[in-house]
Amino acid sequence: MAQQERAVRTRRAVLEAAAGVFAERGYAAATIAEILNRAGVTKGALYFHFDSKAALARGVLEERISAEYHVPRELKLQEWVDAGMTLADRLPREPLLLAAVRLSADLQGRDVFGSAWPAWAELTASLLAEARARDEVLPHVVPEETAQVFLGAWIGVQFVSQAVADWADLDQRMSALFDHLLPAIAAPSVLVRLDTAPDRGARVIEEARRRSRAALAGASS
Amino acid sequence: MAQQERAVRTRRAVLEAAAGVFAERGYAAATIAEILNRAGVTKGALYFHFDSKAALARGVLEERISAEYHVPRELKLQEWVDAGMTLADRLPREPLLLAAVRLSADLQGRDVFGSAWPAWAELTASLLAEARARDEVLPHVVPEETAQVFLGAWIGVQFVSQAVADWADLDQRMSALFDHLLPAIAAPSVLVRLDTAPDRGARVIEEARRRSRAALAGASS
Repeated sequence: MAQQERAVRTRRAVLEAAAGVFAERGYAAATIAEILNRAGVTKGALYFHFDSKAALARGVLEERISAEYHVPRELKLQEWVDAGMTLADRLPREPLLLAAVRLSADLQGRDVFGSAWPAWAELTASLLAEARARDEVLPHVVPEETAQVFLGAWIGVQFVSQAVADWADLDQRMSALFDHLLPAIAAPSVLVRLDTAPDRGARVIEEARRRSRAALAGASS
Repeated sequence: MAQQERAVRTRRAVLEAAAGVFAERGYAAATIAEILNRAGVTKGALYFHFDSKAALARGVLEERISAEYHVPRELKLQEWVDAGMTLADRLPREPLLLAAVRLSADLQGRDVFGSAWPAWAELTASLLAEARARDEVLPHVVPEETAQVFLGAWIGVQFVSQAVADWADLDQRMSALFDHLLPAIAAPSVLVRLDTAPDRGARVIEEARRRSRAALAGASS
């Protein structure tokens, strides 16, 4: 294994271990010792990539959350729904996402290491702006304002799902959230074509994996 | 002062002191000593009313949140909006509300002392059910489902407002939330008549106080 590849793997292992500890204990209670222990790397290797606990938190928050399972759609609004529904499907299973959610909501910590909220709001705002350019949204929609409403609503919905159902109903709650927001956003002819079913996220992820396997097979043939 | 009246006042002083400490520090870090100190009562007086820290938390969560500034409206949906907007106006200033919000979101503690979330969801569901009986809502609306969406969205919106603006923009965010949810809920002829302006909460509170003063004046004249 080339030295660079090893460094990338080490960095990833450290980041995932840190995410697991942050997601379970929160930032204040997390220790470098536990992260080292989980990552199975030396202190020197960890500090080569991240010089402090705050740098680890920033590293977790900078991980892109949405690109992996993106499938282009005819309707940009469907891509926005898909981004939310795939996140809902992945969140309970992915420590990096759980950690980003928890760190972003850390009222003391976010002054130190920042927050993923601006990036999440920007993702919604940019998809809504594209949707507006294609006349998919109602004329009065202001993408940045809707993005802030959605950010708040999404954070609260997953928090309630975690508290009352240990995430088990997150797909249903997110589906209901979209059903309650979209009539204020989508043009009527677009609204009826959107798929917001609870299992939408799982289906999109399966589709993205199939496309990615097919692309690999095509490239190697 | 009659003994019973004194007991009511002591109980209230203890509850408000406890709310202040819970709101600032959270349940785990709150101490009976600090609550005693703030309430200015003896340990015996506190334990006469509340036999544990958990009992104090339950006492805070049982306080009614919505009745005080209720003004009957022609439209039940306006009463629902008013309940949300008056809460948004009061929340940053009232330790009892802030404590109820914080305690309800305490993932460890809520198993011990409960949560105000069911009562809040029930308030929305019952107002929406009344609105439905009056044909104010769209036919497909299920009050309990909408109540759960609103509960999650409302919790998230105030959390974001606290984190990014120290509550200063809560009225705007709540106004935007209602504007984004109501098209999925209200019948079109009702939707156009609803007042969801950011200062709605402050105006309703002023109106409720005026009515209450007028009722007192009428009673004593």
